[in-house]
Amino acid sequence: MERTEIEEIGEFGLIRRLTEGLERRQSSTLVGVGDDAAVLDSGDRKVVISTDMLCEGIHFDLSYMPLKHLGYKAVVVNLSDICAMNVLPTQITVSMALSSRFSVEAVDEMYAGILKACEVYGVDLIGGDTTSSQAGLVLSIAAIGMANSDSIVSRSGAKPNDLLVVTGELGGAYMGLQILEREKEVFKSAPTAQPELQGHEGILERQLKPEARTDVIQEMADLGLKPTAMIDISDGLASEILHLCTASQCGVKLFEEKIPIHEETYETAREFNLDPTLCALSGGEDYELLFTICQEDYDKVHNHPKLTVIGHITEDASEHTLITRNGLHTPLKAQGWDGIKASRKANTEEED
Amino acid sequence: MERTEIEEIGEFGLIRRLTEGLERRQSSTLVGVGDDAAVLDSGDRKVVISTDMLCEGIHFDLSYMPLKHLGYKAVVVNLSDICAMNVLPTQITVSMALSSRFSVEAVDEMYAGILKACEVYGVDLIGGDTTSSQAGLVLSIAAIGMANSDSIVSRSGAKPNDLLVVTGELGGAYMGLQILEREKEVFKSAPTAQPELQGHEGILERQLKPEARTDVIQEMADLGLKPTAMIDISDGLASEILHLCTASQCGVKLFEEKIPIHEETYETAREFNLDPTLCALSGGEDYELLFTICQEDYDKVHNHPKLTVIGHITEDASEHTLITRNGLHTPLKAQGWDGIKASRKANTEEED
Repeated sequence: MERTEIEEIGEFGLIRRLTEGLERRQSSTLVGVGDDAAVLDSGDRKVVISTDMLCEGIHFDLSYMPLKHLGYKAVVVNLSDICAMNVLPTQITVSMALSSRFSVEAVDEMYAGILKACEVYGVDLIGGDTTSSQAGLVLSIAAIGMANSDSIVSRSGAKPNDLLVVTGELGGAYMGLQILEREKEVFKSAPTAQPELQGHEGILERQLKPEARTDVIQEMADLGLKPTAMIDISDGLASEILHLCTASQCGVKLFEEKIPIHEETYETAREFNLDPTLCALSGGEDYELLFTICQEDYDKVHNHPKLTVIGHITEDASEHTLITRNGLHTPLKAQGWDGIKASRKANTEEED
Repeated sequence: MERTEIEEIGEFGLIRRLTEGLERRQSSTLVGVGDDAAVLDSGDRKVVISTDMLCEGIHFDLSYMPLKHLGYKAVVVNLSDICAMNVLPTQITVSMALSSRFSVEAVDEMYAGILKACEVYGVDLIGGDTTSSQAGLVLSIAAIGMANSDSIVSRSGAKPNDLLVVTGELGGAYMGLQILEREKEVFKSAPTAQPELQGHEGILERQLKPEARTDVIQEMADLGLKPTAMIDISDGLASEILHLCTASQCGVKLFEEKIPIHEETYETAREFNLDPTLCALSGGEDYELLFTICQEDYDKVHNHPKLTVIGHITEDASEHTLITRNGLHTPLKAQGWDGIKASRKANTEEED
């Protein structure tokens, strides 16, 4: 029998392969696979549901991720998917598989983080499953929200000339991870050394305790602002822009100078010989929202402290252009962490 | 810091500890943790949702569970939870973590089983997540159904004098597992030996390809029969009866001679020196439905080929009585697999 390694086709390739040609049998399935969340028709209000799985050693490293933070972050990541549909989350389910390495007290700690997130975001924990695992910790969380049909926003509604908007600042979570990984290496070679985390509190918090932008969803509703398309930034700005353009069958022009990057992120990137823009484009885990709005809504986002216009949508679906600070037009690519690392190597060699 | 092993308090103890005193903040949360599924208020129709996690080496053994069957069974187990609320399932989400041991072709195989179950039960696959794992395979599935509020049945509505009813036949899935484990041992010592599975096709199918009783849910709706309380049999009849009684704050009288056991299950249990009744009471994984009905509905279940009255509910919540074939009254206990094994040892020694 033939054997194809999963890494040959990648996660997105695998998902495409598995979900291609899925049949829809139930009239209550309004949106299925392919957006941040599925949408179900249960009557006057629609139900939005999304699920994410986090595995030890793949998505988190317990040597620098405290269990309480892990619990908090695992919930937030899922709530963020509901926000990306322009819906406020209302319930979650939590399933976990635990190896015998985990004590009851360790589970308590993780649950304290989960319940803290429920408290902060006002959501109810309504179910789940708890089981043994052969190795490590696996967390599978589903988040649910409810909304009227006309307020739900998918990835696919962007139109030419729409403005591209992002919430908050980008690249911080990735730089926080670089600090944690550096200190882990230091600790391995000198276990008595104190970690040097000072001055990096902001980006560490972005990595260890991200937040879902329910505040922005609420404020947009108050402003009467409904995005034409939306997605949350889990994999990096570039990758999410490309997802949104593919779903909306349109192109994009993105302006490097507009991408919001916090000073602390900027300084730390420089310290690590990394290009701050590349960290924002490919770092991921910021859980900010990326969306498009009609030109007519510009006044509602202009000068809004949480929102930044970073580009606009174009008609040509093959055009994904990044316009750099010095005016160069370059193709926008989702390079992932490998791309950032390759660029660090190049930067370092330039200095040498 | 104190360290308590999870096995000291057990899975149910851990769940109790984690979910005690959970706050409810959303008015749309009608039923939270503690039943087969949660119930959400999304308007005219209620949404029912349940989730289950299956881990390699804990819930399944790929040395005798073909991947296609695993996919099918993982879906069925979740659909059964929705049935246990007297609701027909309509959608599922599927998340999975895969180690590098699994090829794309292996995932295709598992997915074929998942999609087969979707086809058989007419449910839509609406989302999920696919990720790497450090070791083994973890499947986390959520099932969703929708129903009018007045047709949903919880575990807690049983009243004194209600009749206790079970669907299908019990103990088969456990005996199927015994056959598979025996053949695995034979294979280990003599890899060229052909497995002796003949004559056990029925119970092997109960273990490898169980079904959710959506047919019974539909037939009860057609009959105008609404159970007063219901649960599905995943852990064994005894354990589920006790859950139902605890939730309904009542007692039970169960008649051994009424428990439906297929001849093939009976014969195989005897062959293994096991008490067939004990296999039905503690074997589990039958995914039949256990429910209570008012006495007035007796005519609707009497002579129904899929339904058997096996006892009745009593007022005294401390009474859980099994009345044996020879008229003895013994306490009904959830003994689990350990209880069955201990009894096998005793049976074998008696013979010697």
